[in-house]
Amino acid sequence: MITDKLIERIKQLDNPTVAGIDTSFDYLPEDMKSGVCDFAGAAKAVLAFNKEIIDNICDIVPCVKVQIAYYEMYGLEGMNTFLQTLQYAAQKGMLVMTDAKRNDIGATAECYAKAYLGETAVGKKSYTAFDSDFLTVNGYLGSDGIKPFLGWMQKRDKGIFALVKTSNKSSGELQDLKLENGKTVYEYMGSLVEEWGKDSIGKYGYSAVGAVVGATHPEQARILRGEMPHTFFLIPGYGAQGGTADDLKVCFDKDGLGGIVNSSRGILCAYKQEKYKGLTFSAAARQACIDMKNDLNRAIKG
Amino acid sequence: MITDKLIERIKQLDNPTVAGIDTSFDYLPEDMKSGVCDFAGAAKAVLAFNKEIIDNICDIVPCVKVQIAYYEMYGLEGMNTFLQTLQYAAQKGMLVMTDAKRNDIGATAECYAKAYLGETAVGKKSYTAFDSDFLTVNGYLGSDGIKPFLGWMQKRDKGIFALVKTSNKSSGELQDLKLENGKTVYEYMGSLVEEWGKDSIGKYGYSAVGAVVGATHPEQARILRGEMPHTFFLIPGYGAQGGTADDLKVCFDKDGLGGIVNSSRGILCAYKQEKYKGLTFSAAARQACIDMKNDLNRAIKG
Repeated sequence: MITDKLIERIKQLDNPTVAGIDTSFDYLPEDMKSGVCDFAGAAKAVLAFNKEIIDNICDIVPCVKVQIAYYEMYGLEGMNTFLQTLQYAAQKGMLVMTDAKRNDIGATAECYAKAYLGETAVGKKSYTAFDSDFLTVNGYLGSDGIKPFLGWMQKRDKGIFALVKTSNKSSGELQDLKLENGKTVYEYMGSLVEEWGKDSIGKYGYSAVGAVVGATHPEQARILRGEMPHTFFLIPGYGAQGGTADDLKVCFDKDGLGGIVNSSRGILCAYKQEKYKGLTFSAAARQACIDMKNDLNRAIKG
Repeated sequence: MITDKLIERIKQLDNPTVAGIDTSFDYLPEDMKSGVCDFAGAAKAVLAFNKEIIDNICDIVPCVKVQIAYYEMYGLEGMNTFLQTLQYAAQKGMLVMTDAKRNDIGATAECYAKAYLGETAVGKKSYTAFDSDFLTVNGYLGSDGIKPFLGWMQKRDKGIFALVKTSNKSSGELQDLKLENGKTVYEYMGSLVEEWGKDSIGKYGYSAVGAVVGATHPEQARILRGEMPHTFFLIPGYGAQGGTADDLKVCFDKDGLGGIVNSSRGILCAYKQEKYKGLTFSAAARQACIDMKNDLNRAIKG
């Protein structure tokens, strides 16, 4: 069961980090950008960068999260790099998450589910498109937009993370609204997510339907941890967005489990930081992952 | 201004229809499917089908809406067909809408905005990826996830449609929740959308920030029409999903403007209906568009 696998890999590596491979061409070192002037060149350079990052973190980080928006913006060539990045990380033994926040009505959600978690039939044969272990989704459309994902999750041992309380500043505009029963919109979304996961709870007590809960809102995260006992959290907002390890420790249970923390720019662009000066981009990324792991474990287990 | 252009084209053709080009390979006539057994073949067949549909409706329908999920499920080859379909419809003089319901935090929303409405820089040059006149978005993350789209809309004369009240059965689970002030979540989302559009109102009184409002919920649509006087509606749910022309007429103003109605399977699969028997798929699609136009105009203007 996929969430069990993720938890076991986190335990094995003693590292609740997911590395966000959200690679803008602009992030690359100057020598990799030099002379590149079109999407094909940018996509090729980004893929080379991603592979070197993955090579240097795959033995210490359990999972990558590839943010598809960063690849869609380079057109078809970018989409090819997205696919190659997913496949390369999987080959290197990492779990792979596509961060795409897909959402639609049932018939269309079924297409998204096929694209990222399932298979698409052509005549009598079926193929995967952008095969991932996990996909992020947005539940604004309610249960019938989520059910197609649940079907493929069961068939192919996959997982999803649904947005509950996002890490951005304006997340509260809609998500923090108080309902007439005194609960908030994000708590209600949390209750739907907990319900969607009830048939897929693994041996550690967490289901294959996770929730996105931002590190930047510790008080809300604490409430959600209490109300969503079977839901594994994907926690963005650490580092570049301002969330600290001490902010997000409320997302974890007494065994130090219950969530995985994303960092993207903090890893990819570590080589630009003063503290990693003199290291190559991939060595800096590795060191940033080690530092992040130690920082998280200090807060979560300390 | 893009919404003015859309309204003018609707008036010129006397047709408030957007044709949903949500083409599953399964929808194709048997002779087009015969012998096809992989994504490359499926994507090629779907493109040929889409082009013939577009050829046969471009002089009577103002706009196409291409649902990206139906292309993502055929992988890279599907994405190529998606792009070719957008470009072909634009060449034929149609306005083109990408239905992708994208959503994310600001920095990532900026990537999506570049991909569909803007341009992505590579060194000193910039290119479009999947250039569209309009894009659908999901506002669950609040204003800072929408602002990047507004920036590119202004720079390149583009528009968005944000989900407010969707056409699916379970849309009410979250969207119909009552807030402590007595309003619903969808009304609150509607108020955000109206606010996001306030700086882009065109000569017909409608802004470039539209709303998705399902034809299957006429009572909610009536409320939203009253509360969102400057917001143009993209109206799914007509036909296959059960919404009728009489249900959706509440979305239109006294001049018969204010919305555009989507039909997808009702057009693409018209050739399978008893009433269009004997027609080719593209002739049936054209006749279905004519019948839909007459049905809509009867209800809206009658």
